[in-house]
Amino acid sequence: MTDQLTAEAILPQEFPNLGPVALEGLHPALLDAKMDSMRVLSETAMAFPDALSFSSGAPYDGDYDLNQISRQIEQYFACSREAGVPEALLARRMFHYGPVNGFILAEIAQMLRVQEGIEVPEASIMVTNGFQEALLIALRGLFSSPDDVLLTVAPAYVGILGAARMLDIPYRGVLEGPEGICAENVLEVIRATRAEGKRPRALYLIPDFSNPSGTVIPLATRRRLLEIAEAEDLLILEDNPYGIFAPDGEQLPTFKALDTRQRVVFLGSFAKSAFPGARMGYLIADQILEYRGQSPRYLAQRLSLAKSMFSVGTSSLSQALIAGLLHERGYDLRKASEPSRDVYLERLKAALENLALHFPPSKWDQHGVGWNEPRGGFFIVLNLPFAVDLALMEHSAREYGVSWAPMNMFYPEGGGERQLRLGVSNLEPAKIAEGIARLARFITDHAARTGQEGKS
Amino acid sequence: MTDQLTAEAILPQEFPNLGPVALEGLHPALLDAKMDSMRVLSETAMAFPDALSFSSGAPYDGDYDLNQISRQIEQYFACSREAGVPEALLARRMFHYGPVNGFILAEIAQMLRVQEGIEVPEASIMVTNGFQEALLIALRGLFSSPDDVLLTVAPAYVGILGAARMLDIPYRGVLEGPEGICAENVLEVIRATRAEGKRPRALYLIPDFSNPSGTVIPLATRRRLLEIAEAEDLLILEDNPYGIFAPDGEQLPTFKALDTRQRVVFLGSFAKSAFPGARMGYLIADQILEYRGQSPRYLAQRLSLAKSMFSVGTSSLSQALIAGLLHERGYDLRKASEPSRDVYLERLKAALENLALHFPPSKWDQHGVGWNEPRGGFFIVLNLPFAVDLALMEHSAREYGVSWAPMNMFYPEGGGERQLRLGVSNLEPAKIAEGIARLARFITDHAARTGQEGKS
Repeated sequence: MTDQLTAEAILPQEFPNLGPVALEGLHPALLDAKMDSMRVLSETAMAFPDALSFSSGAPYDGDYDLNQISRQIEQYFACSREAGVPEALLARRMFHYGPVNGFILAEIAQMLRVQEGIEVPEASIMVTNGFQEALLIALRGLFSSPDDVLLTVAPAYVGILGAARMLDIPYRGVLEGPEGICAENVLEVIRATRAEGKRPRALYLIPDFSNPSGTVIPLATRRRLLEIAEAEDLLILEDNPYGIFAPDGEQLPTFKALDTRQRVVFLGSFAKSAFPGARMGYLIADQILEYRGQSPRYLAQRLSLAKSMFSVGTSSLSQALIAGLLHERGYDLRKASEPSRDVYLERLKAALENLALHFPPSKWDQHGVGWNEPRGGFFIVLNLPFAVDLALMEHSAREYGVSWAPMNMFYPEGGGERQLRLGVSNLEPAKIAEGIARLARFITDHAARTGQEGKS
Repeated sequence: MTDQLTAEAILPQEFPNLGPVALEGLHPALLDAKMDSMRVLSETAMAFPDALSFSSGAPYDGDYDLNQISRQIEQYFACSREAGVPEALLARRMFHYGPVNGFILAEIAQMLRVQEGIEVPEASIMVTNGFQEALLIALRGLFSSPDDVLLTVAPAYVGILGAARMLDIPYRGVLEGPEGICAENVLEVIRATRAEGKRPRALYLIPDFSNPSGTVIPLATRRRLLEIAEAEDLLILEDNPYGIFAPDGEQLPTFKALDTRQRVVFLGSFAKSAFPGARMGYLIADQILEYRGQSPRYLAQRLSLAKSMFSVGTSSLSQALIAGLLHERGYDLRKASEPSRDVYLERLKAALENLALHFPPSKWDQHGVGWNEPRGGFFIVLNLPFAVDLALMEHSAREYGVSWAPMNMFYPEGGGERQLRLGVSNLEPAKIAEGIARLARFITDHAARTGQEGKS
């Protein structure tokens, strides 16, 4: 009934007394337009259902089957029974408050081993309510002082900026180059942060087909950044939801797989690889802690205190379903995702071809529109001859029937004003062709209207 | 496989390099013994499985049936189809990123209407990852300055103190009397807080059969506290998981049901009334906000920005299951819970009778042990002739085969040193009798050993 976030229709017509809470008294992040941009994007998509939407990175939904839900949950029950788990324990796991860090740690450890070549102990893993909670819990645990600064790739997924804001953690952006975040920029921001008397505590990055920029960090840079982390006493927060969709032969090892010195906390997601609605993610924090004579524990175990205060545990239903799904898919979501990977690559190709059709690179000095050419992932970035924002995106959705995301919302400290992001993951090639045709009309009209046509 | 939080057995025998994270560098709440007390309680229960555990408030688990899981999820599908929801929309709700505030708002609104007489618009409701996330989101939204102080009933559920610590929100305790939190103590703490130049922003309380104290706030006090909230510009954060278990004829209206001026944010749980493992809760925030010419929205809608940064959404599986369960139970968990309510009341009665057997009130001057007599809920508080702590609780579990919770862990600013909490909800009467016999041996031995037998 309530698939809408807006509820103007439901609000009383008259509200003489606006009630006891003044908006100005709320936490400032709740009033920040940048924080609110994700909501505006999704509400625009709902408000203009006929518009073709390039505004999100929603996974391909062509192969969803409602029957899979009960089947995969029952699959988990069957595996558990086969492994000798008594019925009473299984019922307790499902119905009761479970272990804070989750009960499918062995299954996730097996997936990491099979799929990523990452060998970590089960006890260094925590199941979370999606990637976002993994991020929030890692930040909460690792940032103890107002002088601890988070470095984040810029542009970055809005969720990283939002998570930092929720916890009042200061952050600084590290601008990407065409090959993603680079060592020199990281070192420069570290130096600048230290010069202010602050401490760079962790660096957030998306190594493969980054959201929003589509960049991939080369292997040599990965190794160099791990060295820098060691030399500068920095942790790396790795977010890698798109790496499994790499073309054959182009797959790179994750930072975590290269991490011999426990410098990486890996923040995992099942949203892109398995089931967004289950809202399940995980973190790997295999750093060993010793404290005042207590037994040593993994950081993930110490972070369970934060997890218990954020949400006590993670849905047993989501855990069971993901475990059943992992079993069905041989603990290798990369392999199981090959068909959808091919779908994504086809869509990316269609988008790039249609862009070239409408904006021939040979005539760039006339139209002024350029773009990057990611080798995978969900996103393409367009450079435009004029500035765009959310209001202009709404105009594009309403008048031209096509929506997208202004890049500026992904920059923590300004930037990307003349760029937009196209998410191509959830539109069929024919719709991509039509969508890019609509986008071309919008761009051409707007460039003409603003008198900023051509190179600027 | 991993139903244990501890993992000493899994840790490498040798760990010469303890890795890059020093425990002292973590957020201080993660090192706070009080915050960690819940973990110690649950690990003690796991370490001594033969000990009878009064240490938790785990719901009665006698009627759990694994078949209910698929059935109730399918029930939600059936209801949706019957209501004309197209298959594609249903699949999208289940598999995709859903609306941040949840898709079963209508179902929860109906439950609130039928079960509690609370009439609120759907758009003022948000589905959350359990009560704990509802609390965290409400706190994050409402506390904007370091001068905003949270007032909390004392003693209080550890989760409220933990949530405040996670967000670095300062709090002050308001000591309860035998009838729960009282107006005079609230006013006194408000005055003291103001005198320090701080602003009392909200008051957290558990009106019915409070955890840990078992107290019930009388109706007149509820009305008086709502008046105080209005007069002192304070919000009330109502946590009411135990009210549905009141004996016949003793049910009181919730603060939210009495709230004519939108002073109450209700933090709901399905853990006690329906299904702890689903980790589903909700909040009601029907305060209307207007802001810089934007359309007015409910506070719950504005808080969705925080929800999106905490966890993006709530498990579709948990939402579907709870919706199916609500349908099966006629949207009245109070009525559906009558059988388990009677189980809880029988256990409470058994515990009180066995306490009187071992510690006759007529001989109080000899044994020095007293207790309150709650009319419902999960908990009894014992007054002891000696101080107890977590170490002593472990001793009791190891040597006497009975565990409990020291009350001091529930006091934000000290108190309850000579008290313990008994959770009676998840032990059968025969085990309660045996457990209290063991507890009596522990208390008698320890009182003799400390030489503090009798009145002190």
